[in-house]
Amino acid sequence: MEKIIIKLQKRSYPIIIADKLFNDFLPFWPLNIDDKVVLITNDRVAPIYLNILRNLLIRSGIVTDQLILPDGEQNKSLITLDTIFTKLLKKNYDRSTILIGLGGGVIGDITGFAAATYQRGIRFIQVPTTLLAQVDASIGGKTGINHILGKNMIGAFHQPIAVIINLDVLHTLSMKEFSSGLAEIIKYAIALDSSFFGWLESHLDDLLILHLPSLIYCIRRCCELKASIIAIDERDQGIRSVLNLGHTYGHAIESYLGYSQWSHGESIAAGIMMAVNTALRLNQFNCSDAKRIKLLLTRAGLPVRGPKEMTSKNYLEYMKRDKKSISGQLNLVLPTSIGNVKTVFNVNHELVSSSIEDTNN
Amino acid sequence: MEKIIIKLQKRSYPIIIADKLFNDFLPFWPLNIDDKVVLITNDRVAPIYLNILRNLLIRSGIVTDQLILPDGEQNKSLITLDTIFTKLLKKNYDRSTILIGLGGGVIGDITGFAAATYQRGIRFIQVPTTLLAQVDASIGGKTGINHILGKNMIGAFHQPIAVIINLDVLHTLSMKEFSSGLAEIIKYAIALDSSFFGWLESHLDDLLILHLPSLIYCIRRCCELKASIIAIDERDQGIRSVLNLGHTYGHAIESYLGYSQWSHGESIAAGIMMAVNTALRLNQFNCSDAKRIKLLLTRAGLPVRGPKEMTSKNYLEYMKRDKKSISGQLNLVLPTSIGNVKTVFNVNHELVSSSIEDTNN
Ligand SMILES: NC(=O)c1ccc[n+]([C@@H]2O[C@H](COP(=O)([O-])OP(=O)(O)OC[C@H]3O[C@@H](n4cnc5c(N)ncnc54)[C@H](O)[C@@H]3O)[C@@H](O)[C@H]2O)c1
Ligand SMILES: NC(=O)c1ccc[n+]([C@@H]2O[C@H](COP(=O)([O-])OP(=O)(O)OC[C@H]3O[C@@H](n4cnc5c(N)ncnc54)[C@H](O)[C@@H]3O)[C@@H](O)[C@H]2O)c1
Ligand SMILES: [Zn+2]
Ligand SMILES: [Zn+2]
Repeated sequence: MEKIIIKLQKRSYPIIIADKLFNDFLPFWPLNIDDKVVLITNDRVAPIYLNILRNLLIRSGIVTDQLILPDGEQNKSLITLDTIFTKLLKKNYDRSTILIGLGGGVIGDITGFAAATYQRGIRFIQVPTTLLAQVDASIGGKTGINHILGKNMIGAFHQPIAVIINLDVLHTLSMKEFSSGLAEIIKYAIALDSSFFGWLESHLDDLLILHLPSLIYCIRRCCELKASIIAIDERDQGIRSVLNLGHTYGHAIESYLGYSQWSHGESIAAGIMMAVNTALRLNQFNCSDAKRIKLLLTRAGLPVRGPKEMTSKNYLEYMKRDKKSISGQLNLVLPTSIGNVKTVFNVNHELVSSSIEDTNN
Repeated sequence: MEKIIIKLQKRSYPIIIADKLFNDFLPFWPLNIDDKVVLITNDRVAPIYLNILRNLLIRSGIVTDQLILPDGEQNKSLITLDTIFTKLLKKNYDRSTILIGLGGGVIGDITGFAAATYQRGIRFIQVPTTLLAQVDASIGGKTGINHILGKNMIGAFHQPIAVIINLDVLHTLSMKEFSSGLAEIIKYAIALDSSFFGWLESHLDDLLILHLPSLIYCIRRCCELKASIIAIDERDQGIRSVLNLGHTYGHAIESYLGYSQWSHGESIAAGIMMAVNTALRLNQFNCSDAKRIKLLLTRAGLPVRGPKEMTSKNYLEYMKRDKKSISGQLNLVLPTSIGNVKTVFNVNHELVSSSIEDTNN
């Protein structure tokens, strides 16, 4: 069992990584007998894992209830949030209640935001079930929902009290969703750790067959990288933005497509290539590294260009609404070499358009 | 001009109290030329004050936009919140935007909650225009909205960057709304300051005719009392709950009536009397003080019993959902003498029912 601590003084919490974590109730669960817990999950994950986890908790004396939401990124919305509040209020759940988000990043983000705002804040635990949520979404306390006019535009910083990463759940994940997680993993490597990028080049095939030691190493490394960033910049006021590599472009894809068809990771993969091409046009990146990135993304089953129907104008429209942009200026996280990125402020809109076209042609 | 600082380290901010504050742009506004501001107000306040404040800001070089919401407590809702988000996103307002809540507690609470959650948090300024908001709602960073199933059930702690209390606006307030503010003022005195209670007994008539020095003294005293509590317990985990005197009962009235007919302060006034009667039944309060309280509330134009149509059962149903209650146990803030309250845990439901009936008969 691997344990990584997110160090945030009073708000510190552990990330636990291992297989078989739903088999026994181990002391890493920050729960006591008679605690009241509401498991929040969706109608795809529920049939596979809800009862296993539910029974584990009940057997351990935890008062356990559940709420099953409709699956899908388009449900990371104010309406679904209201469904959660209504459930909690109908049953008179008080401030001592603990929510558990059992699912991918969508469930984690919305459960976290519900916890952030129900009665001005209650505790929650992340039990991420997608690779993407295990390496990224479940960690760091960014919670929130989408708005038709923009991705993740409404939210709060609210740290979980624990993140429980059970590797067993990855076996039921579709290849598309597994690849989606690989996009964020590759993002970490490009943004922060060139030797991890090298490790990925040599171990990608092991990851794809769910080789346990490789999975553990990889997820652990991502959690460590994220932990180190969050400890310095919990509220995303500086360095944390490096984790946004590819996201300004990728969010445009997701928003444009109405949070359907393309997964978050697929959008981010295309976005990373757009960021790489923007960096190339700015002469701050070299072609051979660009090729390594394109090859690794492709091997991971990820797209390296955006959806055919989107024009560069479509991108710009959404990108100007990005949380990093000020007064319509584009501030972009762009790579300088594998393992390093920097934020470039006020990037020329036409250069960005051309880079998007470079990527998509 | 009176200035009180809410001391919360990095989140400290000033409360400014004076008349004529919309006449000149003075340095206490934490705004700079070219700052982007969105004034949020409602359709009752807008015709009276929006242009005055808007023009003041524009003349001072602030980029000023506005959003006018429908008036009323029933609009302190998720739907209205979404209206704010849509407005901000449509016009691409970024994280540097500052919201200004111009209105009573409803506008202040919802503007604050929008600021707490738009792009995971932007700055906001409170410009309270009701007596109630000036002495209470605008101060301390409790923001939020109602849910059909309970008052203020969704929210966040998010401190404003300044509170600007312009006394001129009180002249257009209806008597009903003025009285509503007096309820919170009397609450402060009962909970925290017996000599202030005495001052109120002798100066209530001055307040009712808006005698400026009395108003200034009174509002200042309330702000000081609230500031002292918040500096110790920003997140309402202990002592801050004393400010909840009368609220567990009062919120039941508001929720039951669907946030209509009775103002917040009227509900709180009846709630204070119910708390007093509960304290009497618990033998922790004396009859002569109960009479002084009843008299002062009555002189302030406030109700001293609840709505006729509500039974004690109706109260209990909502009171069990109170944010202080744990597992349906009633934890109530009750007076021990004028100037002192304590939280009594797990108060007997029947005793509470009888006390509510004592009040209403
Ligand atoms: N908060 C953060 O810091 C952060 C970081 C990255 C991404 N995100 C967010 O995360 C979301 C994407 O997360 P995601 O990729 O996990 O999407 P997701 O939650 O939609 O999960 C993808 C699909 O896999 C299904 N699924 C989940 N676990 C499964 C399992 N074990 N077996 C079979 N199917 C399973 C889901 O039901 C869904 O259909 C986006 O909304 C993104 O904005 C947040
Ligand atoms: N956040 C907190 O700490 C806190 C504390 C106390 C109360 N509150 C909340 O505050 C709300 C009650 O506030 P309220 O009593 O100000 O109600 P309100 O905001 O509804 O205002 C009362 C009425 O007066 C009108 N109005 C406002 N200013 C006016 C003016 N200058 N002239 C004429 N009309 C004016 C309003 O439009 C409204 O119709 C409740 O929702 C309550 O929960 C919050
Ligand atoms: Zn991401
Ligand atoms: Zn109140």
